[in-house]
Amino acid sequence: MKGAKLKNKVVGSGHLSGIEAPGQLKDLSSQQLLELADEIRARIISTVAETGGHLAPSLGVVELCLALHYVFDAGHDRIIWDVGHQAYAHKLLTGRQKEFDTLRQYGGLSGFPKRSESKYDAFGTGHSSTSISAGLGIAVANHLKGSQAKTIAVIGDGSMTAGMAFEGLNHAGDLARNLIVVLNDNEMSISPNVGALSSFLSRKLSGKTLTYLKREMEDFLNSVPGIGPNILQVLRRSVDSLISFFTPGMLFQALEFKYIGPINGHRLDKLIETFQIAGNLEGPVLIHVLTKKGKGYELAEKDPTRFHGVGAFDVTSGKSLEQPVNVSYTKVFGRALKKLADVDPKVIAITAAMPQGTGLDGFAEAHRDRFFDVGIAEQHAVTFAAGLATEGFKPVVAVYSTFLQRAFDQLLHDVCLQNLPVVFAMDRGGIVGEDGPTHHGVFDLSYLRTVPNFVLMAPKDENELQHMLKTAVDHGGPVAVRYPRGEGAGVKLDEELKSLEIGKGELLRPGKDLLIVGIGSTVQTAMEAAERLDAQGIEAAVINARFVKPLDNELILTWAKKTGMVITVEENMLQGGFGSAVLEMFEEESFFPQALKRLGICDFFVPHGNQALLRNLCGIDSEAIERAALKMLNYNHGQVLRALR
Amino acid sequence: MKGAKLKNKVVGSGHLSGIEAPGQLKDLSSQQLLELADEIRARIISTVAETGGHLAPSLGVVELCLALHYVFDAGHDRIIWDVGHQAYAHKLLTGRQKEFDTLRQYGGLSGFPKRSESKYDAFGTGHSSTSISAGLGIAVANHLKGSQAKTIAVIGDGSMTAGMAFEGLNHAGDLARNLIVVLNDNEMSISPNVGALSSFLSRKLSGKTLTYLKREMEDFLNSVPGIGPNILQVLRRSVDSLISFFTPGMLFQALEFKYIGPINGHRLDKLIETFQIAGNLEGPVLIHVLTKKGKGYELAEKDPTRFHGVGAFDVTSGKSLEQPVNVSYTKVFGRALKKLADVDPKVIAITAAMPQGTGLDGFAEAHRDRFFDVGIAEQHAVTFAAGLATEGFKPVVAVYSTFLQRAFDQLLHDVCLQNLPVVFAMDRGGIVGEDGPTHHGVFDLSYLRTVPNFVLMAPKDENELQHMLKTAVDHGGPVAVRYPRGEGAGVKLDEELKSLEIGKGELLRPGKDLLIVGIGSTVQTAMEAAERLDAQGIEAAVINARFVKPLDNELILTWAKKTGMVITVEENMLQGGFGSAVLEMFEEESFFPQALKRLGICDFFVPHGNQALLRNLCGIDSEAIERAALKMLNYNHGQVLRALR
Repeated sequence: MKGAKLKNKVVGSGHLSGIEAPGQLKDLSSQQLLELADEIRARIISTVAETGGHLAPSLGVVELCLALHYVFDAGHDRIIWDVGHQAYAHKLLTGRQKEFDTLRQYGGLSGFPKRSESKYDAFGTGHSSTSISAGLGIAVANHLKGSQAKTIAVIGDGSMTAGMAFEGLNHAGDLARNLIVVLNDNEMSISPNVGALSSFLSRKLSGKTLTYLKREMEDFLNSVPGIGPNILQVLRRSVDSLISFFTPGMLFQALEFKYIGPINGHRLDKLIETFQIAGNLEGPVLIHVLTKKGKGYELAEKDPTRFHGVGAFDVTSGKSLEQPVNVSYTKVFGRALKKLADVDPKVIAITAAMPQGTGLDGFAEAHRDRFFDVGIAEQHAVTFAAGLATEGFKPVVAVYSTFLQRAFDQLLHDVCLQNLPVVFAMDRGGIVGEDGPTHHGVFDLSYLRTVPNFVLMAPKDENELQHMLKTAVDHGGPVAVRYPRGEGAGVKLDEELKSLEIGKGELLRPGKDLLIVGIGSTVQTAMEAAERLDAQGIEAAVINARFVKPLDNELILTWAKKTGMVITVEENMLQGGFGSAVLEMFEEESFFPQALKRLGICDFFVPHGNQALLRNLCGIDSEAIERAALKMLNYNHGQVLRALR
Repeated sequence: MKGAKLKNKVVGSGHLSGIEAPGQLKDLSSQQLLELADEIRARIISTVAETGGHLAPSLGVVELCLALHYVFDAGHDRIIWDVGHQAYAHKLLTGRQKEFDTLRQYGGLSGFPKRSESKYDAFGTGHSSTSISAGLGIAVANHLKGSQAKTIAVIGDGSMTAGMAFEGLNHAGDLARNLIVVLNDNEMSISPNVGALSSFLSRKLSGKTLTYLKREMEDFLNSVPGIGPNILQVLRRSVDSLISFFTPGMLFQALEFKYIGPINGHRLDKLIETFQIAGNLEGPVLIHVLTKKGKGYELAEKDPTRFHGVGAFDVTSGKSLEQPVNVSYTKVFGRALKKLADVDPKVIAITAAMPQGTGLDGFAEAHRDRFFDVGIAEQHAVTFAAGLATEGFKPVVAVYSTFLQRAFDQLLHDVCLQNLPVVFAMDRGGIVGEDGPTHHGVFDLSYLRTVPNFVLMAPKDENELQHMLKTAVDHGGPVAVRYPRGEGAGVKLDEELKSLEIGKGELLRPGKDLLIVGIGSTVQTAMEAAERLDAQGIEAAVINARFVKPLDNELILTWAKKTGMVITVEENMLQGGFGSAVLEMFEEESFFPQALKRLGICDFFVPHGNQALLRNLCGIDSEAIERAALKMLNYNHGQVLRALR
């Protein structure tokens, strides 16, 4: 345990190692359950310190998880963990404690619930706010089957800000099936929450709404004849307590949910009692549980944002054990955008609950009035940006590639159909690594390329990212810059940002034998492959395409014709991706190279694991390019030989 | 006017023809404004009777629209019409009454607000629930610019059920900028609304919530010492009125909006007064307006669902003037699904507020317990379906192609990543006609094809649709059937439904000169082209691909090799579409035909107009195929000649 600062020192009581199924919890006493909670925390901390992962969210729900598994039968009932980054205790309690050290490693346990991993994972998650909808589907299924099984959706207050959660609540209230929604309220999503709902939940109604409510109540009481001052006094105090009872629940009651809470989410006895009551109620129930993110690990309690998702760290100091050599793409983006905003008052930054994750913290400090965190609400973020753009502003939506999938329709209609100058800064494009299939941004080049009016680019390194960001902000139309998760190539960063010509790629090295066309992160890979081929006497030309759309037809065509053989390589799906754009261009130009190979992710969901390993698995690293080149050259060599016979 | 049944006969007073800008309204007296309202209604009815369009929504907001333009200055302030199908009065009042007869015709006025059409159209719409987000963006822009301009978002209660509206409200409440949201509450979206919010808004709280609230209040009153029975009596009555005051507004107050209403949306004086007050308030305001869909045209008032969107009709009888020859794809789908559900109790139908539009009304009647209208909430619809699928059900999500764009992420993660048997019945795939760019379903083949585990098919006619639906329901994995808007080919419908082999296309006619590969609606077009070519002595083989994914590589490759020349044709974007799937397959198979041409929609947003005209414009009708074939053959003929020299 390397001296983890656990508040309660009763660890190693040895209950956990005996638990193979959650049903065994029923055999433990209250005291033993408390000891188990400590054990679980210790195990989560020690494991995540090695593997990295979502520490603070999982520490916050240990008692909640224990209570759920104590009261409900997860083999029969269904527990759904929204987002799922808080499900480590659940994994430990459902027969996976032996493999827990493989967390987030390739071939090991997923960092999220996963149906194929365990029968206790009722629904796979990864993106926020799906649990109520999925839970309602399950609850309806049980109703149709005449089953009495319970369905429990555990959702954070951050996830509640996404519209999808509201859609689910609205429908659940209408259908009135047996669904228990546990609102895990830690006043945080990843960063502190924003939004009116958030202040509502955190009972900060002493602001406008409460004043308003109170005034109305007061007017009402004053208008009733025959109340003496003493009674009025008593009534006033009672009204206060009545209002404080009503307010957190009334939103959910308005949506036809029974509301219970708020409950201290670290009082195991209270949680168990409440879940037992809720399990016997008919219709939709919302249980409001207050938890502390990072609970039980002092450092995480103090800085839950930093400990939301971490790499390997030292338990005693909390310090990261991963020392990146180069500055990250995210940081370069954040600095470059701040720099652009320093001189252009029209530049606006928008994030959907990821100010740190997208590197906007510096921007937020420097330009508070032009920084907007809209909560977990990508749909709104994009259309909000479109609204700003109609009035002459230059909004930059900084978003992880995979989360932008939530706002495809808004990007299509509100931004591109209207040809509005909204910039999408797409972080985590390509393979992200340990977070796995729900977080790999590998569909973006394909689906975004279909959208008219859209300019889509990807930098070969962090310096080009800076220039592309300026290009995008200057462009005056819908445009995206896509860049990978992680550190840059370590190249020198130009002080002055310059606009690139839209639709122009660059030839990085000439070559007569074949052409390798890379985009974004794969340009470096292509260069490495070219160097290896060079050592074998093969001269490969390498093009940095820069733009997926519009494609630099002329440059690619010129070198494709010179070499006759073309390899494209991308960190994206092969279907409809960058390579297909090149193919389509060849078709339009009625040019067919002698040989052509598109490298990219073939038609499967990329699992979790480290980035280098996954790139190897997907056949898009420099060895794969080299292999493809050699095969192509031999193949054609053979063809030529056959033709000569 | 063909004897339109207008309740108020004061029409033709001639105010409308003089109005070229909304500012002129200020010169009219109250009486003249009322006369103008009647004129506008008459004009809308007579025009839509000819052009077709969204009649009932536009009739419902005539006074609302007049009041907005009377109070606000739309050249300076910004009015956003959510969805926008109710914006006809707005168009008539903002300098477009002369062209109003061109409504929804190619080259004429759009059926929706459109920024490029008028400076008074502050934000283009088409899909629901974007107005609050866009409005907030504009309001924030005004704040940053120091402008006092007002922003008004007019949103229906149906659109309020989409999560995106909630995301916008939540952020607006937090930012506290000057935004006026007008909730146009007609207790309808297109069909009557569903969802807890809906019953909440319509004050049907006499149900569970009200009882609950009352009981709490009663307990409270009983607990206060010193209240005599008389006072208690008075208090009770007052509590009743207090509750009825609080309830409709409290949801919005919880989100930090000032709430005003409900107001009779057909009382022009009240509306004007209210908007004047609201215009002077600081921070976000919600005005709850009650309107009647179809107001002023008896037939539409009685059957607002039928008159929501109509084709040309006879004003006196209300009867449609368009007599389709063949049964529609929508109807065939609805009947086939009902038939499948008759024998399979696991089949479930889900719609997002389009029970009639998707043809599910028959299913809903026959299998009420397995029919779910979730409201305008595509995201929820898809994940709700996934939840049902985890429990062994076979949910069919019936949705317009263009609306499914709202749920790309849910389809990707909740359905396909988990490989769950959810069927997507995608109506309105391809070019839909008069509704224009926000409604053409022309991106689906491209973006859906990128998704692993997904099967994607499109029938050549309505009979094949039936069989494909059975194929999909039997498949046991994620699958979509995509079919066009409008009537079928008029083919005989088989009584018995049969499952097709996944991934197998069919050769419809052999031919030695070239191969035409069609998918869905373009198969018929390809056959027509082949017949014309036949008349010119050219033998074109035609393949009905049936499956976009998995593609029938073998069949296509065989005939591509036989003919050496290939044309693909699709009603979808060329980028990453069906033709690109064929291209990619050729690349994978290292086969390059002598000539290859992909026909489809090149990189632009298809405008509105009738389907045939637009198909011609996009170059995907039979003439275009014929032209492409002739060009290809001549071209290659020329090549051969050159080679022989």
